[in-house]
Amino acid sequence: MPYEKAEAYIKKHQNRMLQDLFNFLSIPSLSKDSKERNGLYEAAEFLSTYLNSIGIPMVRWITFEDAAPIIYAERHQGSHLPTILIYGHYDVQPPGKLEEWCSPPFAPEIRGNCLYARGASDDKGQLLTHLQALEAVIQTGRELPFNIKFLFEGEEEIGSPGLLALLSRVREARFVEIIDEQGREHTLDLQADVVAISDTPFLFENQPALCIGTRGLCGIEITVHGPAQDLHSGGYGGLVENPLHALSAMIHSLHNVDGSIAVNGFYNDIASIPNEIRSIIQQTSPSEELLLQQLGVPALYGEAGYTPLERIWIRPSLEVNRMYGGDIGSSPRTIIPSVAHATVTVRLALGQNPAHIADIIQKHLMSKAPSTVRVNTKLLDQCWAWMADVSHTAYAHALQALAYGFGKEATFIQMGGSIPVLAHFSEHLQAQVVLLGFGLPSDNIHSANENFSLSQREQGLRTLVAYYQTPWPPVEKGSCL
Amino acid sequence: MPYEKAEAYIKKHQNRMLQDLFNFLSIPSLSKDSKERNGLYEAAEFLSTYLNSIGIPMVRWITFEDAAPIIYAERHQGSHLPTILIYGHYDVQPPGKLEEWCSPPFAPEIRGNCLYARGASDDKGQLLTHLQALEAVIQTGRELPFNIKFLFEGEEEIGSPGLLALLSRVREARFVEIIDEQGREHTLDLQADVVAISDTPFLFENQPALCIGTRGLCGIEITVHGPAQDLHSGGYGGLVENPLHALSAMIHSLHNVDGSIAVNGFYNDIASIPNEIRSIIQQTSPSEELLLQQLGVPALYGEAGYTPLERIWIRPSLEVNRMYGGDIGSSPRTIIPSVAHATVTVRLALGQNPAHIADIIQKHLMSKAPSTVRVNTKLLDQCWAWMADVSHTAYAHALQALAYGFGKEATFIQMGGSIPVLAHFSEHLQAQVVLLGFGLPSDNIHSANENFSLSQREQGLRTLVAYYQTPWPPVEKGSCL
Repeated sequence: MPYEKAEAYIKKHQNRMLQDLFNFLSIPSLSKDSKERNGLYEAAEFLSTYLNSIGIPMVRWITFEDAAPIIYAERHQGSHLPTILIYGHYDVQPPGKLEEWCSPPFAPEIRGNCLYARGASDDKGQLLTHLQALEAVIQTGRELPFNIKFLFEGEEEIGSPGLLALLSRVREARFVEIIDEQGREHTLDLQADVVAISDTPFLFENQPALCIGTRGLCGIEITVHGPAQDLHSGGYGGLVENPLHALSAMIHSLHNVDGSIAVNGFYNDIASIPNEIRSIIQQTSPSEELLLQQLGVPALYGEAGYTPLERIWIRPSLEVNRMYGGDIGSSPRTIIPSVAHATVTVRLALGQNPAHIADIIQKHLMSKAPSTVRVNTKLLDQCWAWMADVSHTAYAHALQALAYGFGKEATFIQMGGSIPVLAHFSEHLQAQVVLLGFGLPSDNIHSANENFSLSQREQGLRTLVAYYQTPWPPVEKGSCL
Repeated sequence: MPYEKAEAYIKKHQNRMLQDLFNFLSIPSLSKDSKERNGLYEAAEFLSTYLNSIGIPMVRWITFEDAAPIIYAERHQGSHLPTILIYGHYDVQPPGKLEEWCSPPFAPEIRGNCLYARGASDDKGQLLTHLQALEAVIQTGRELPFNIKFLFEGEEEIGSPGLLALLSRVREARFVEIIDEQGREHTLDLQADVVAISDTPFLFENQPALCIGTRGLCGIEITVHGPAQDLHSGGYGGLVENPLHALSAMIHSLHNVDGSIAVNGFYNDIASIPNEIRSIIQQTSPSEELLLQQLGVPALYGEAGYTPLERIWIRPSLEVNRMYGGDIGSSPRTIIPSVAHATVTVRLALGQNPAHIADIIQKHLMSKAPSTVRVNTKLLDQCWAWMADVSHTAYAHALQALAYGFGKEATFIQMGGSIPVLAHFSEHLQAQVVLLGFGLPSDNIHSANENFSLSQREQGLRTLVAYYQTPWPPVEKGSCL
């Protein structure tokens, strides 16, 4: 077996490697809370030290004003070899309601076969599998058939503003010029053939999968201002527009009864999906019964004419992520609240321009706002949908590694979530993005009790040992699909 | 001047009387927070002591299980004299958002001409004017031309459950039988000709007013359950009904575009209002310009065909007092929230049965709930609208006292708020309710910075000195209107 030395290394160091992951997960590296940046710096420090320890000596921090540092490092093997750039993010989602967590979000704990902590799956746990697999390969003396570059950011959960600024500076030659804190100019070579990312889940447990498409994202914060202050509902009810009524009407107007989105022109620019892909999706679809049980809802919902997975993967959707007005958390007073809030985000299909969609939704909302209130809107982060070119040999390479690591042929899947940087990697680096994710649908990412399956982690490490040791298969265009 | 002795007494004791009010307002007697009952008991204790100090020796506490005590006391002058029962409440609304208060809600502070504190106007400040006016009358040795009874409760802000239970036990003879803590039976004589209440505002400053009608109230708490837990909006958006979308649709369905309420049969039982009353209302209506400026809204709202005051006084209205789902107070996650909440209350017109209206609204909401979610509802406190019989001599008596106290003829007004006990006093005691309120629209009751105008308080005391010293004018049916 060509991979046995590296696997033996992992086995020998398994306790220490798990302890390293615990240490990484213990750092509250929240990017959404702008007041607290220490966690982000601590997590960046952790990764820098880790890279040094596995034999990557030169680690560079790239910072834009007070953004979380972008970590860049590389290991050059030979100019004739293809280059893999490993991307990951060390920031995590806010923990949400603490009382819903069975163990504290930043005190990692193993229960059953899972490791529970915020970031366990999204993305610290998955990111670290790359470094630990590479450690095993490098420390057991194998020659890598790739040049490796590392690019880790700490702002994925807030839309990757720093990384996008960096990528937008990439020229045709794929170089970035940056100026360091001493005012010196540096040139960073981001050229890569493949961007490898582990930040996605399988669709089912025990079925290795390669994600080939993600949805885009745009969003709007809406604030509806009614009376100058909360009013007694007896004293003024019937004379003053209630901002919550106006907001409910505006939110309700965004969907048609059939589940489609009722904004003029919303569906105009959606790219058609190849029949082969649609047929894969339709074959993959889980049973409605299973979905109902998994989700705990009395009935499914959604756009007519599409299977459950098509609704999530290739069709857009619009969700109110939060909405509030009046007394929250205390006893409700009988008032007309002065103000009402909602946050709306849209998952975009391939071809939809996030800026355009945000614009037409904003105009739609304003057109539905009654003249009895004042409405403010604020645009949120935006990114395009992404789809892989699965005929590229990088996909055959990834499928091979997955089959080895999980002992089973891998299938193509997509995901309904968004990874803002994907479209930018495709556009600016012209690299193939390979989503080698090892998560599971039960990981509870963005929710309470986020976790990472320990067996997914183990098989993920095996997959990556194979991935980094195996040269690219001969290019056979179109062989994957 | 027949009232000069009592007024001189008030002047002499003005600092102490104001300090007594400060002490009363410093007690956080919140009835909505069921965990903290100490404030209620402390406020009840304050009133008992106060009653004793002004010459009312026998004060009885009536308690139902762990309800806030109802305070009953009386001063008998002669069986041939009419009886006035003074009703007030010593509980207060929750303070709401503390950061909106310029001074702490339970640390009374005078700024300008106003006394700021929770309960300053609703109702501690107004209640105490009765005791302080009576103190002046009694201590200056005047014979009262009335028998006086006192009935103070501590649950008005939660719908007066204890008092309503008490009143429902009143028999034809207007006696209540209660059993004390030692198991002994007592008979309480609640018989009264007039129930005098100071818990309402004038419509305009410098225009004394007697409130002759209030709206009723019913309400529903709605909880919409979607998926078993918050879901990632990328992973599931488009496949699972968002409880906030369902709730927005349900809330939106409650009104027609013209501002009327879209619930079948809602308007069926509304009693017609005498033309004389409608004409008083139409003459009283403030200008739209003034209302816009006062309320801080770009345009008024409401049911077509009715003037602003008619909308508030004699027409019903339906308000969402609060609504929430998703992450409140923290950074919003991109989720489909598992649950969404709303509290809806309705202000009822004369003739509308609160139980029936709550029932048809509940049925309407359930009929609008999609099958993709589960909906729970819970009924809230209910009370009927009330309207005075203004031809009774008790109204001439009150108008006389107001004219003396404020130096100006008083007008009839109504109010859009609800005082649950009014309909019960009318029904069970067959007493005339007289709403001798001294508040102002700027008192911010139920909001931050609640206050009571010191000159309203002073003139209110003068009014009550006259009210309690002056015998009823001869009965002239129909003379008031």
